[in-house]
Amino acid sequence: MIGYPNAKPRMNTTSIKSSASNRGMSLEKDLNQTNLYYLELDKAVIYKKPTPVQIVNVDYPKRSAAKITEAYFKIPSTTDYNGVYKGKAVDFEAKETKLKTSFPFKLIHPHQIEHLKRVIRHGGIGFLIIRFTYYDETYYIEAEKMIDAYSNRDHQSLPYTWFKENGYLIPFSLTPPVDYLKIIDKYILKEV
Amino acid sequence: MIGYPNAKPRMNTTSIKSSASNRGMSLEKDLNQTNLYYLELDKAVIYKKPTPVQIVNVDYPKRSAAKITEAYFKIPSTTDYNGVYKGKAVDFEAKETKLKTSFPFKLIHPHQIEHLKRVIRHGGIGFLIIRFTYYDETYYIEAEKMIDAYSNRDHQSLPYTWFKENGYLIPFSLTPPVDYLKIIDKYILKEV
Repeated sequence: MIGYPNAKPRMNTTSIKSSASNRGMSLEKDLNQTNLYYLELDKAVIYKKPTPVQIVNVDYPKRSAAKITEAYFKIPSTTDYNGVYKGKAVDFEAKETKLKTSFPFKLIHPHQIEHLKRVIRHGGIGFLIIRFTYYDETYYIEAEKMIDAYSNRDHQSLPYTWFKENGYLIPFSLTPPVDYLKIIDKYILKEV
Repeated sequence: MIGYPNAKPRMNTTSIKSSASNRGMSLEKDLNQTNLYYLELDKAVIYKKPTPVQIVNVDYPKRSAAKITEAYFKIPSTTDYNGVYKGKAVDFEAKETKLKTSFPFKLIHPHQIEHLKRVIRHGGIGFLIIRFTYYDETYYIEAEKMIDAYSNRDHQSLPYTWFKENGYLIPFSLTPPVDYLKIIDKYILKEV
């Protein structure tokens, strides 16, 4: 490939804007990065659980690693993320939507709601992290509020405005991308 | 089926003994049953994490569920079990051995030791459940003690006698089979 010294990629406002709105890559990647950051700075020990898989068939070739040749995705019975922060059990589910005006309830499984109910009943810090990719906004929603909205739902989705009113907007930073412990310190443990 | 009122199944000492030594089925099954019991009685919310799997290839057939056709087992980066009990994060690893005289250190991955160090540093209740199937004995080992033994090891295994001296024998019961919360109440939270 021949390099033309002045042929730098053009950066116009459109491309900047689109790169800004893609900055989050995906919520899962952002959260993995955030949790790794917390781990490395020894702030908390929080992991994403592995995807639950029903293994049906495994080959054991002689000279190499066991190979799973048939397996199926299972519906998770719990939330995706959990761990320890300041002695407390932390447990949450994360979801993102491209919709502008609402968040569909169907993105959350009923047993995830049941699981969050149990977590908070036993004194854990339970919540949801919901991202509206269109606005590039990520909200911390206390489990109590989502359980309440879920139980009393008369629509198939929860309006975007509900999140603005009931959630805590997690400020975007680079390190870490989704600093949800800041919200926990300030509004849940009320330490700051 | 015809019922003979007096034809009860014969119970001799041999069959009782062999059923007793097999009563544990496997430690994993016993723990799943125990955790389900805790869940149903609303005593704690503790789950086994799914087996971590690296998914390489997935088929999406038109009219049926997505089928994973190539995947490999990954080395777990954390322990297998975690959850919430009395507001505290609970985190443990479970292992069984058929050996009579010792427990091989290699059954525990170094990063599981690192993970347990982090858990207790952040105030969680970290421990191991170790079963000697030969004796049908299941021990609760505080993470601190195992970390210490692991760090100062000069042999490839830990003698069975070490467990008798440093662990808490979990009494066998039917419901639940491995009542480890009893040990936590009595010796860790010192509530009883």
